[in-house]
Amino acid sequence: MQRIFEKIRESAGLEISQYAFDKILRAMATDSYGWRIVDISDQPFNLVAETLKQMENTGYLKFVGSRIDLTRNGKNLLRQRGIYPKADFRCTHCKGTGYDVSTYEEMIAKFNETLEKLPRPESIQNRWIMTPESIFRRAMLMVQKGNSAGKEIVILKDADLLSLALALTRLPDKITVLEDNREMADYLFNLSHTARLPIEVHEYDLKDAIPKKFFGKYDVFMADPPEGYESLMLYLKRGLALLRPGEGQAGFFGLTHTEASLRKWQTLQRELLLMNDIVITDILYEFTEYENENFQPDKIQADVPIFQQKPTVPWYKSCVYRLETLEEFEPLSEPIEIHDDLMNEEQLAYSKKTEIKEET
Amino acid sequence: MQRIFEKIRESAGLEISQYAFDKILRAMATDSYGWRIVDISDQPFNLVAETLKQMENTGYLKFVGSRIDLTRNGKNLLRQRGIYPKADFRCTHCKGTGYDVSTYEEMIAKFNETLEKLPRPESIQNRWIMTPESIFRRAMLMVQKGNSAGKEIVILKDADLLSLALALTRLPDKITVLEDNREMADYLFNLSHTARLPIEVHEYDLKDAIPKKFFGKYDVFMADPPEGYESLMLYLKRGLALLRPGEGQAGFFGLTHTEASLRKWQTLQRELLLMNDIVITDILYEFTEYENENFQPDKIQADVPIFQQKPTVPWYKSCVYRLETLEEFEPLSEPIEIHDDLMNEEQLAYSKKTEIKEET
Repeated sequence: MQRIFEKIRESAGLEISQYAFDKILRAMATDSYGWRIVDISDQPFNLVAETLKQMENTGYLKFVGSRIDLTRNGKNLLRQRGIYPKADFRCTHCKGTGYDVSTYEEMIAKFNETLEKLPRPESIQNRWIMTPESIFRRAMLMVQKGNSAGKEIVILKDADLLSLALALTRLPDKITVLEDNREMADYLFNLSHTARLPIEVHEYDLKDAIPKKFFGKYDVFMADPPEGYESLMLYLKRGLALLRPGEGQAGFFGLTHTEASLRKWQTLQRELLLMNDIVITDILYEFTEYENENFQPDKIQADVPIFQQKPTVPWYKSCVYRLETLEEFEPLSEPIEIHDDLMNEEQLAYSKKTEIKEET
Repeated sequence: MQRIFEKIRESAGLEISQYAFDKILRAMATDSYGWRIVDISDQPFNLVAETLKQMENTGYLKFVGSRIDLTRNGKNLLRQRGIYPKADFRCTHCKGTGYDVSTYEEMIAKFNETLEKLPRPESIQNRWIMTPESIFRRAMLMVQKGNSAGKEIVILKDADLLSLALALTRLPDKITVLEDNREMADYLFNLSHTARLPIEVHEYDLKDAIPKKFFGKYDVFMADPPEGYESLMLYLKRGLALLRPGEGQAGFFGLTHTEASLRKWQTLQRELLLMNDIVITDILYEFTEYENENFQPDKIQADVPIFQQKPTVPWYKSCVYRLETLEEFEPLSEPIEIHDDLMNEEQLAYSKKTEIKEET
């Protein structure tokens, strides 16, 4: 195995451990479809793609369209390493999330209707967005936890339109979206105006200090940060700067296994818990699914053919974290230094020679 | 409100915050049944019981059998404080856990059958135990996460008989139970012998240092610690001492909101993350339900009448944490000093004049 591990390191600049390798093998034992292998392995995309490529080079598998075919050598390898396929006991009713969206069916219809009348601007259409079902599951989670009815909620960028979903529930007292994309901000303003919804939109770049009128003023924040470590922490620190002092405020954010390693999860957990008087109350595995509609295979480097075809199943999923503030919580006022790390070695876009930056 | 808060402090020795108070009010707005109020409020039992008592004393509510009846004053109070009933969107199929036990129906029947033939010893029957459904959900979670098939699993005390459930799946390579209760150890030995199951039972008191033959030898540990802070940490430290070095080992444990405040959750999270090279991968709300069968109302002090009647609905539930080890993980070898804190101010058993100990 050492040879494959070295090849992966050389080619992708990523370290792979025995354990991560076995998780990828386990995904291969479970499904042959490339995108499902990424989904099941819970490893950074680049690591999975590079591993598959090196295993093809070494004769353990063949690429057949968008699937892999294990060779005899490949099957032997799985047997030698004691790899079992991944079981799936997740409830089909709620897709393993524990939250049943059927109660919100009418609202989802209304949501889709609104979007048909007023489609998102093109620059946003090209981004990945959550499925409407997943958006409403987020909303339900917030309602169930008591973080929606009568609350003032702030959303840090909102390409997914959670603001619209929350507004349709008519429960929050106030919904504020902070958005740096001018087109999106204009769009949200129109949407809110046309549908007469209580959504406030403010143009604001998270890299700038938080305007005084927003600082420490909210009960709840929601964010779906890019997962480069610095951008991730930037979003969370801004979120924590927006919450009122004292206990009972909540923050929600998404985090994947596909763009963030468990090492990054750990660093984030440590930093969050020591940064302020907060506690993590929930970490919900694969709570959110994303649309494949806008997926652009040409943004992925062409050397792993099975990822050149548009995915036909949901495969990119995020987990949801929920934080709660305790008595000594104070909104964070520290200035934040930003270096540009929106891309890093665990990020999605697959490229053979990404410039690798050290982080954390 | 200050008067009620002071009364609660005086009488139960517990601090109550505006926020915790509102969570209890919210539960009261949602349901009138005492045990459901404890369940919904997600606050320590003693705090809920004392709050209800003081609210009765102050004319906000009346006790009617095992229910509460809000007076006009009580209803006004809820309105003034902007209290909304708690929504419930949890999937009825999987009880909001995301895990469907129907696949394991036959095994659950076999589990119950085994218990009919060989009932647990009396000293254990008087303890609270998980429902068979919940036991199998735990087992499914372990299987799904890849922490069961082909793994060596250690369980720290096992009144719930997770070992039996795991053995019935036939997936783990080895199941070891460490048990300090002699009667329980003998029982498990018989059970395993009679049903020809691969369960090893060892008599061992967690307060003693871990015997060398167990130290650093397992892939997975499972524990359901008592929730006094010291006992909680004792179990978790012992669990971490039993795992193999390096990445990919896992630990599972239960933790409630009924016997542990969010402050305790936070201290635990901070301590765990700094103690060793581990990450928290999942925190699953109310994953586990317990039987009411062995509930003994006479163990609860008689001054809050609505808790003198045996609960008729599941109300005591625990959340499940899952940890994973990373590369630098080393099994913990530090000696652990134990003071007797099996009871503390957040613990279940309701008593007006519990001796209060400072903790953490």
